[in-house]
Amino acid sequence: MHAEKGDNKDIEVKDVEVKDIEVPVGSCQTGEGHLCGWQPSPRLKFGNHHPGQEREGMTKMKRRRILVVGGVAAGPSAAAKARRCDEEAEIRLFEKGPHISYAGCGLPYYVSGAVRDRQKLLVMTPEAFRARHNVEVLTRHEVTQIDPEKKRVRVRNLKEGEERWYEYDALVLATGARPVVPPIPGVEAANVFTLRTIPDADAIIQSAARAEARSAVVVGGGLIGLEMAEALLARGLQVTIIEKMDQVLAPLDQEMALPVQKHLEEKGVRVLTGEGVEGFEVSSGAVTGVRTQGGAVLPADLVLLSVGVRPDVDLAQAAGVKLGPTGAIATGDRMQTNLEDIYAAGDCAESRNRVTGEAVWAPLGSVANRHGRTAGANAAGAEARFGGVLGSGVVKVCDLTAAWTGLSEREARARGLRVEVSHVHPLNRAHCYPEAKPLAIKLVVNAPDGRLLGAQAIGREGTDKRIDVLATAIYNGMTAHDLFDVDLAYAPPFAPAKDPVAVAGIVAGNTVDGEVRNITPGDLKRRLDAAADLVLVDVRTQEEYRAGHLPGALNIPLEELRQRCGELWPDRETVVYCRQGLRGYLAARILMQKGFSRVFNLGGGTLTWPYGLVR
Amino acid sequence: MHAEKGDNKDIEVKDVEVKDIEVPVGSCQTGEGHLCGWQPSPRLKFGNHHPGQEREGMTKMKRRRILVVGGVAAGPSAAAKARRCDEEAEIRLFEKGPHISYAGCGLPYYVSGAVRDRQKLLVMTPEAFRARHNVEVLTRHEVTQIDPEKKRVRVRNLKEGEERWYEYDALVLATGARPVVPPIPGVEAANVFTLRTIPDADAIIQSAARAEARSAVVVGGGLIGLEMAEALLARGLQVTIIEKMDQVLAPLDQEMALPVQKHLEEKGVRVLTGEGVEGFEVSSGAVTGVRTQGGAVLPADLVLLSVGVRPDVDLAQAAGVKLGPTGAIATGDRMQTNLEDIYAAGDCAESRNRVTGEAVWAPLGSVANRHGRTAGANAAGAEARFGGVLGSGVVKVCDLTAAWTGLSEREARARGLRVEVSHVHPLNRAHCYPEAKPLAIKLVVNAPDGRLLGAQAIGREGTDKRIDVLATAIYNGMTAHDLFDVDLAYAPPFAPAKDPVAVAGIVAGNTVDGEVRNITPGDLKRRLDAAADLVLVDVRTQEEYRAGHLPGALNIPLEELRQRCGELWPDRETVVYCRQGLRGYLAARILMQKGFSRVFNLGGGTLTWPYGLVR
Repeated sequence: MHAEKGDNKDIEVKDVEVKDIEVPVGSCQTGEGHLCGWQPSPRLKFGNHHPGQEREGMTKMKRRRILVVGGVAAGPSAAAKARRCDEEAEIRLFEKGPHISYAGCGLPYYVSGAVRDRQKLLVMTPEAFRARHNVEVLTRHEVTQIDPEKKRVRVRNLKEGEERWYEYDALVLATGARPVVPPIPGVEAANVFTLRTIPDADAIIQSAARAEARSAVVVGGGLIGLEMAEALLARGLQVTIIEKMDQVLAPLDQEMALPVQKHLEEKGVRVLTGEGVEGFEVSSGAVTGVRTQGGAVLPADLVLLSVGVRPDVDLAQAAGVKLGPTGAIATGDRMQTNLEDIYAAGDCAESRNRVTGEAVWAPLGSVANRHGRTAGANAAGAEARFGGVLGSGVVKVCDLTAAWTGLSEREARARGLRVEVSHVHPLNRAHCYPEAKPLAIKLVVNAPDGRLLGAQAIGREGTDKRIDVLATAIYNGMTAHDLFDVDLAYAPPFAPAKDPVAVAGIVAGNTVDGEVRNITPGDLKRRLDAAADLVLVDVRTQEEYRAGHLPGALNIPLEELRQRCGELWPDRETVVYCRQGLRGYLAARILMQKGFSRVFNLGGGTLTWPYGLVR
Repeated sequence: MHAEKGDNKDIEVKDVEVKDIEVPVGSCQTGEGHLCGWQPSPRLKFGNHHPGQEREGMTKMKRRRILVVGGVAAGPSAAAKARRCDEEAEIRLFEKGPHISYAGCGLPYYVSGAVRDRQKLLVMTPEAFRARHNVEVLTRHEVTQIDPEKKRVRVRNLKEGEERWYEYDALVLATGARPVVPPIPGVEAANVFTLRTIPDADAIIQSAARAEARSAVVVGGGLIGLEMAEALLARGLQVTIIEKMDQVLAPLDQEMALPVQKHLEEKGVRVLTGEGVEGFEVSSGAVTGVRTQGGAVLPADLVLLSVGVRPDVDLAQAAGVKLGPTGAIATGDRMQTNLEDIYAAGDCAESRNRVTGEAVWAPLGSVANRHGRTAGANAAGAEARFGGVLGSGVVKVCDLTAAWTGLSEREARARGLRVEVSHVHPLNRAHCYPEAKPLAIKLVVNAPDGRLLGAQAIGREGTDKRIDVLATAIYNGMTAHDLFDVDLAYAPPFAPAKDPVAVAGIVAGNTVDGEVRNITPGDLKRRLDAAADLVLVDVRTQEEYRAGHLPGALNIPLEELRQRCGELWPDRETVVYCRQGLRGYLAARILMQKGFSRVFNLGGGTLTWPYGLVR
């Protein structure tokens, strides 16, 4: 495709062949699993290159015109970065709505009442942004058309109703995403909401505050669904979550999601997984109940739909901007699209996953900021590259924190990767320190080389810390073994002397090295259900065993195992387990060194076993 | 030196030349500064190698004898790891005191009352350790002599008074450290304490609980000194800290230590820096006052000496074990000493600093655990390597957390390295979220390539998280620029959309790239004091300026700078500043692009400026 000269005669437009950007999608999804080994190009420096200054001699009077479409997160980041790179450029930002830079991720906390001051949701006013960055901010202006041939966009002033063209030298699309509204009969009712904007939140608060409001149904058990369940609970409503998958929080593996669901239930939220919405019962224009596909009717004075968002790509697509496999705008690592001088950033744009090399869609505020900064630098003529995403996330669910990064076990296996997983339950602080609480960490490791693929954690204080450390580790291609080597900061209020990250690394490293073989709860369950020939040994104390154990397990406490291993059969498959995995590991080491050839330890012990115990 | 065969005829002892281990000390300290680029040898796997099994055919009846000296942290780690590597070995652990595995780092929290249950300080009893790990634990047994020729140690049973020899195939020295007691007249008084053991803590609690106890003097403003100041404050005493250096917390640079000192003072602790102890006033065997070198007399019903610890190396040294430049036992990366089959671990042993390659002494519980595990594996015939330390640390000081990793600016400059530093003050949570508090981060970066050398942080929740992420970054040799690329987990309760780590990376990266030149508070102060020809511009608002500004500063708010830069002189040296550094950076970018050739931004703004403001 050739970029043609527009009608900007005084701006040098290079007549360059612009190739379609390559998106190596699916290259990991067929055949024997392997890691793509994708690495972003070497980082180019931000801003060392100052086009405003350099061009001065050549086209002294002409300033680069940069247009940004969208004013929530990526757009303002792009405009501000472009300004820092080019003081002389003409930069305009168009936003359909009345606000720019609002804290979309803060909305659930505004609904819950934790954020009391509505003004706090507004990060920056158009006026302040203009004053600081010398960017013309046009709110209530909708971009209705892109003309990539003439390098201009058509803009409708929503206040006045008039339209005009604006020309660009570089265009940044940051059109965001919008909530998915499934076509369920009754979905248009006044008390069925989605949450994306401040007015959405206002309306939900108003609806929840009605005297007759007692019950809320949240459709969707993802991040927003869980945050909103907590928020509506805080507003005094009875809350039910309906989730189609058989678990909440899709980024987690099932056994890690279960404790989160249990915690919500303990807090009084009803959670229906594997369940969908059939329809709504509507009376006088308002929903009064939700009919589930399972045939139940749930009372509902308020319904929140949080079944996901969809990238806002109509404008881009109509202009010939190519979408990627995820449905968002395909981007290269400078956040460029297939069309010359058009960049995309934020929730409308794809990213590259750093672990798999695949194109992924990560509609998150943190990613949007990074996208925007990269797109803004490139739009201003500097060069910057986006380093990809890991798919990191974190959510507060009442008193619990759930966090993840990289690939889940499910995602890794779906790509045909041979993985080892480890589950550990160390304390988040020194055991002697008050409020030391267990923290569940799961690592997903590439079996051939021990490289970390992903991590998940559930716990109290310090859960987010461990995932951020593990995200940094995965970013750097570290192995499970390496984790033990990192000199993390230690004091009793912040960590045990052996940090949970180190413990997780040791345990995963042991399995990679073959020092112990782990069996996952799912695999053990399948083998027990199939009445496989295996010996199951509970190595906890008699008291622990009596309080509840796996069906069919013998009890030989670890401390007696050295003496009593004659009661077992060295040539039979033997599965040992304890409460969190450590004693099981020690037991496995003893048996292996005593000549037992097929010993497995139940990873994470009974704490990770989700299928119930017997007495 | 030749290892000679001992009298263990039935154990194969290889006649190997054991070379003195090389300690490249000081190689970074002379000439032009550079980074040593030391890297640990490729990690060898733990435990894949099971000597117990392998030897079976060869010397069926003979078991490896492993002796461990010291039972607090590194010793038990070593013994437990050795057992996991070799189920058949005879492992004995000698401990002089009555306890093993006590939580030394938890003692200040026991004194403060936060740890109520004294039993919680005991991680493991000798009996439980023996039962679990099949390790013979001998408490109240002191090792009095090592005979490396005959590979045996002489042990005195402190209960019975008798002595005997124990032979070893491998010996692990984990003799720990002891508090430094300066030879000040009166130091033997009953109410002058050090804190190292549970009985020490018991005595301090008892002394603080006396009805007449009102004032405490803590000598030394390091980690333990600060933790104990808080603990004694919690016990209701008036506390004064005396510190010889001109700041508390030596691992921090001065401007980062000042807010910690200020916080302590706000909590009611008197802090005297640059001050020493001349002597004690003693009456009836008890100190009643502390005479400072400055001539003051501080009332004192209790004195805590926390001027540091010293490695316990007498036993090792007497046997010919070589010490390193720090005075602790010199070790190689398998934690081996210069003598064959003798390993050292924990507070008595040196480590290698991963950033500089130098031998360092890091007497910390977290390091001791890592040392012990490495030494234990090697002692059992498996191979493991220690990956070095970064010098990470963290301390809770009342409501503040102070944390650090890698080199301080002072340490980096002392090694002749050319560094850039950045100071940022972002929030620890999304700005809209309740209890979002500023977090001060300082990065120390190698100027030639942007590589991270060190980081320091002061703040509330999440301070430890950022330092652990930065420690992981430094471990991996990341640059400041790379930090922006890491996909950290984001949600409003845990971080702003742009994480403080990313912000710190961006700011440091900008200076490395020359996008802006920073001036440190110290350098600016020196130039102002020298009446240097520079123009100082405060780019904050008029209100902020009026409330207090740097001496001699003009005020041109950032928002007016584009219009008013004609009031300044493009060819004069110009220093801009704001509150935290962001507006100053934007102002610098504007001026630089307007042709100002010598513009500097005061890094960290007035928040980092420690020298006071004028009106």
